[in-house]
Amino acid sequence: MKQFLDDDFLLNHSVAKKLYRDFAKDLPVIDYHCHINPKEIADNVTFGDITDLWLGEDHYKWRVMRACGIEEKYITGDAPNRDKFMKWAEVMPKLIGNPLFHWSHLELKKYFGYEGILSKDSAQEVWELCNEKLSRLSVKDIIGMSHVEVICTTDDPVDSLQYHQKIQESGFDVRVLPTWRPDRLLSIEKEDFSDYIRQLSDVSGISINSFETLKKAVRSHMDFFEAMQCRIADHSLAYIMYEPASAQEVDTIFTGALNQMPVGIGDALKFKTECLKFMAEEYHRRGWVMQLHYGVMRNCNSRNFQILGADTGFDCIGDHAPISSLVHFLDDLTTAGKLPKTILYSLNPTDNTAIDTAIGCFQDSVPLGKIQHGCAWWFNDHKAGITSHLTSLANQGVLGNFIGMLTDSRSFLSYTRHDYFRRILCDFIGKLVEQGEYPMDYDLLGNLVRDICYFNAKKFIGL
Amino acid sequence: MKQFLDDDFLLNHSVAKKLYRDFAKDLPVIDYHCHINPKEIADNVTFGDITDLWLGEDHYKWRVMRACGIEEKYITGDAPNRDKFMKWAEVMPKLIGNPLFHWSHLELKKYFGYEGILSKDSAQEVWELCNEKLSRLSVKDIIGMSHVEVICTTDDPVDSLQYHQKIQESGFDVRVLPTWRPDRLLSIEKEDFSDYIRQLSDVSGISINSFETLKKAVRSHMDFFEAMQCRIADHSLAYIMYEPASAQEVDTIFTGALNQMPVGIGDALKFKTECLKFMAEEYHRRGWVMQLHYGVMRNCNSRNFQILGADTGFDCIGDHAPISSLVHFLDDLTTAGKLPKTILYSLNPTDNTAIDTAIGCFQDSVPLGKIQHGCAWWFNDHKAGITSHLTSLANQGVLGNFIGMLTDSRSFLSYTRHDYFRRILCDFIGKLVEQGEYPMDYDLLGNLVRDICYFNAKKFIGL
Amino acid sequence: MKQFLDDDFLLNHSVAKKLYRDFAKDLPVIDYHCHINPKEIADNVTFGDITDLWLGEDHYKWRVMRACGIEEKYITGDAPNRDKFMKWAEVMPKLIGNPLFHWSHLELKKYFGYEGILSKDSAQEVWELCNEKLSRLSVKDIIGMSHVEVICTTDDPVDSLQYHQKIQESGFDVRVLPTWRPDRLLSIEKEDFSDYIRQLSDVSGISINSFETLKKAVRSHMDFFEAMQCRIADHSLAYIMYEPASAQEVDTIFTGALNQMPVGIGDALKFKTECLKFMAEEYHRRGWVMQLHYGVMRNCNSRNFQILGADTGFDCIGDHAPISSLVHFLDDLTTAGKLPKTILYSLNPTDNTAIDTAIGCFQDSVPLGKIQHGCAWWFNDHKAGITSHLTSLANQGVLGNFIGMLTDSRSFLSYTRHDYFRRILCDFIGKLVEQGEYPMDYDLLGNLVRDICYFNAKKFIGL
Repeated sequence: MKQFLDDDFLLNHSVAKKLYRDFAKDLPVIDYHCHINPKEIADNVTFGDITDLWLGEDHYKWRVMRACGIEEKYITGDAPNRDKFMKWAEVMPKLIGNPLFHWSHLELKKYFGYEGILSKDSAQEVWELCNEKLSRLSVKDIIGMSHVEVICTTDDPVDSLQYHQKIQESGFDVRVLPTWRPDRLLSIEKEDFSDYIRQLSDVSGISINSFETLKKAVRSHMDFFEAMQCRIADHSLAYIMYEPASAQEVDTIFTGALNQMPVGIGDALKFKTECLKFMAEEYHRRGWVMQLHYGVMRNCNSRNFQILGADTGFDCIGDHAPISSLVHFLDDLTTAGKLPKTILYSLNPTDNTAIDTAIGCFQDSVPLGKIQHGCAWWFNDHKAGITSHLTSLANQGVLGNFIGMLTDSRSFLSYTRHDYFRRILCDFIGKLVEQGEYPMDYDLLGNLVRDICYFNAKKFIGL
Repeated sequence: MKQFLDDDFLLNHSVAKKLYRDFAKDLPVIDYHCHINPKEIADNVTFGDITDLWLGEDHYKWRVMRACGIEEKYITGDAPNRDKFMKWAEVMPKLIGNPLFHWSHLELKKYFGYEGILSKDSAQEVWELCNEKLSRLSVKDIIGMSHVEVICTTDDPVDSLQYHQKIQESGFDVRVLPTWRPDRLLSIEKEDFSDYIRQLSDVSGISINSFETLKKAVRSHMDFFEAMQCRIADHSLAYIMYEPASAQEVDTIFTGALNQMPVGIGDALKFKTECLKFMAEEYHRRGWVMQLHYGVMRNCNSRNFQILGADTGFDCIGDHAPISSLVHFLDDLTTAGKLPKTILYSLNPTDNTAIDTAIGCFQDSVPLGKIQHGCAWWFNDHKAGITSHLTSLANQGVLGNFIGMLTDSRSFLSYTRHDYFRRILCDFIGKLVEQGEYPMDYDLLGNLVRDICYFNAKKFIGL
Repeated sequence: MKQFLDDDFLLNHSVAKKLYRDFAKDLPVIDYHCHINPKEIADNVTFGDITDLWLGEDHYKWRVMRACGIEEKYITGDAPNRDKFMKWAEVMPKLIGNPLFHWSHLELKKYFGYEGILSKDSAQEVWELCNEKLSRLSVKDIIGMSHVEVICTTDDPVDSLQYHQKIQESGFDVRVLPTWRPDRLLSIEKEDFSDYIRQLSDVSGISINSFETLKKAVRSHMDFFEAMQCRIADHSLAYIMYEPASAQEVDTIFTGALNQMPVGIGDALKFKTECLKFMAEEYHRRGWVMQLHYGVMRNCNSRNFQILGADTGFDCIGDHAPISSLVHFLDDLTTAGKLPKTILYSLNPTDNTAIDTAIGCFQDSVPLGKIQHGCAWWFNDHKAGITSHLTSLANQGVLGNFIGMLTDSRSFLSYTRHDYFRRILCDFIGKLVEQGEYPMDYDLLGNLVRDICYFNAKKFIGL
């Protein structure tokens, strides 16, 4: 019988324990995809209380609170922070098997030294303990405690990157790099698209009135991001679309949209296909990594979307993501010799094996594999999801090339998820060894673990 | 090495065993979804022999018999009951890993005290033993032995519910409640639709000649079901469709169908969408629970459908069930403030995770979660299916709110499936504790187990 | 802690070990589906070195080499064989959890007596050892070492089967039977279709100018295959299509194609549907087994397809394979009373459960079940994939009727995959017994294991 959250948490075999302790535990963190706010680092803020930090923006927690029937005022509403925390604490014991139960306790242990169980009974004690510690912890302190080496934020092309500038100038010893996330640039069907293009015109100083001038502005702004040390692009898509179109056709669609003409679904797909292809070719030229996230259906609850906006806990897995369009898209870029290093993530776990086989069709001379299947993402970021992802990856491809974990988080306490992943990885590998499915050679094993936890990401992204 | 079907059947850890014995085992059964015939309870029938009870209507067993090449006369045909039983016994040993192997032996043990293995060799002994016991066991005796508290049957809106009436008047201490199952009401594309509407007119005393008068008749008949203590509605759908239409449009489609006009697929979907929405709003108003079952392809074998009819073992998993239409359907009801308590079931296990994430978008102030993902259903009702369902539910939502098991059965011996589920649940939870993924706190654990096995269903349905 | 690849490899329980040793290990191999070249058997060739044998045609290995960034010249190119082998050896340690790691070491152990680990360090030693042994091993020696009883190759209808003739005349004590694989016959949309039909005319001596004469030629050539002991047909399809058409319509489409008219997608589906139906009926009449493989997207990388051709490692899982068209196709044949014995394989593991439920709808008087779900195929041929396949099969149907393993391989060393499968099967069954989910009755268990490993295939195919 293991104690909950002891030092061997999630490590069920002696090989797993050794791998974790000797090779994984102390490696630095490269968090190459997250949603933390660079302003908070630049300003080195502190937090008023644990509710601000835990419940301020975490839609994972909001969802399970709603699923327990807790009123919205205790979730995103105007109830006092202490009351919100109490409600959260009440929910905890029901979350058996949910990663939030693990993450929360890992965070309490690592950042606050609390080793008990959060529940209604302990809530007041935890509230006081955390807030007392938080009064003396700045964001940079937390990052420092987390052994982070690189943070890649998520940034719109029109962002001034002033906070990245400020951080870089401040001599902070953690690299905080911007990520090029041009979702709005592809959202030609949205109402504010032409406004957005105007913004892009303004910040780039290039008058955009055609697809060609759009490309020019995009290239110019990529130069700026690159100067700010950007190495990665990121796209959120419902699915990887493939509706190829001629330059002429795309130009007509694009200029129509600039002139407020409504854009039909077919035309939007054409624009997205060709514009993403153009950007992918740019990424290839610059050696950037292209991240493609898909398999999401967003803002499913219209009523709450109108009240609370996006990213508030009303997204779900989307099941329309044909592998054929993904393949055709990558194939076009391959044919042109312009496929960048790519990381694919689907929110739908039933896509995993198909993705693992598809990426095998586009690998070439990049040592770690040009195309990666990114780590178990969002709703799949838990022991079962990570293990299933590793299993498929290992079976279909080369586990030793995997670039490993990221937080994808808005919270500075989420670096524990790297620890969570490392434990699961070591348990996965250790189990194979214990069962006689891989030799017990700690030179080989140690390299595998170190590469997946740290070195592969560093090499792949070119840090 | 565990003995087959010993007291610790399916319980692999000490925590699991304790949870089962101390908290799960002796709880009453709320079987909120089944297909038993209320007439058999009202008449308190006995069964001639074990073949009547086991092979009379159980298409699960029929399927595996066919898969072993047994002639149809020994399955649904006119072979003597003893011969049918012998054929079934011969098949048993090949069913390693199949839930029928477990269910059959659980039933033999619980109701007949037989602890051996059913096979060709033991068939005669079992035949005699069971038949001897059955001669002294009525349906009410079996229900009594099963510690059942509530049974919800499955009933057509035009049903007179005379047997429910008779049971209620008989002073039987088990509540046997009707369930509103209006599948025929939605089947506008079927030939006998107008006949069915005429029946509904007759029993409701309301002349139905428009969508409005249909609604009136439906409401009136719901009042009758409610008076008969109905708390639940149930719908079987190929998938959750979403083709919204105006009241005018629906009325035209409906009156056309009444006048024997053929109904196209698109129009049928519009009628189904709007008619189901109307009923859902009624369920919401009455506090009923809406069950939506989907992901089935029915009557796949035309030849046997013509000979044997529906529900004879020729259905399979359907793979067309877009999550987007499910989401839009729930969203419309949410926007209108009229989403009832809902339970979703898909026969396709690859839908599980998507469903678990979708329901998270529509939870609100109902303490146990307004939307439930119903238990592993039909083809998934086995150890692997139940465990996979629990895993996804726990990872994506709040396992502690789960309303648990039902039999979905036509047989009075199937209450053992509740025991089967409780063992698997205790093993699932116990394993998390053994592995240090949840604290060993029997107050918390006991509550979780009791809630999922009994109290949640009771509260959710409002019994 | 188990040693890697010891005698109990993959056998984790005492029951599993006993089942493997006493019942599975020494059974002959019926390899009823493979891609080895009968000419190499007829000529009883030897191999120059281990690279010829291992890397000459094995696109599984090529894929993971590409995924490690190895240049194509070391994969399919003109680098010296020794250099290619060294590159392969370097990749090995990264393949933790990949079946290639297991298969390669099983082959080294069985055929070359090498019990170490292949890596950069041991590569030279392995190279020398294997090549030295290979100089004294002919193809027939290898087959003899593998305890093979029957080999079914894969052959185009226009093949002369001269090498099968030669083998049969040579008195080789292993039966090497042709398999009817008419993929080109169904590929009406391809450019070389009319050329192919001309070839079929030539070899059959029947002038083909209509669908009727096509059928006549096909029947005639099936007679020839049958005389050559063919018992099995095999079809590779993107998915099981269902677009029924009249004989007249099919004739128009077919004669159009003969006259070089372009064939649209809809027409191609009609031709495929009706032509496959016709052949299926012929299989039924002859007692042949029909294999249907689907769920593949082929030649995803156009650039490499142009350079290297088909079957070079650029295929992936296809996700468009509606269960409804599969069902309708089987239903038509069932209605006509002409459904042959059938084996279904999808490359997409998410199809497994739906397939297992669909086949249950079409079983009839064939003792082992007329419709089989073929073994975990290609990308799924590994411990996790096989176990998942067995689990679903056992839960939905009758595991005891399963016809078991095949190599699907181009290599004569792949017979170890039968051993791999048998170990996994014994572990799967043994675990059920250890956990008390099936009685420890070695009569029953031994029969199950022997049937699945050998006797079921023999009976089902009618060997």
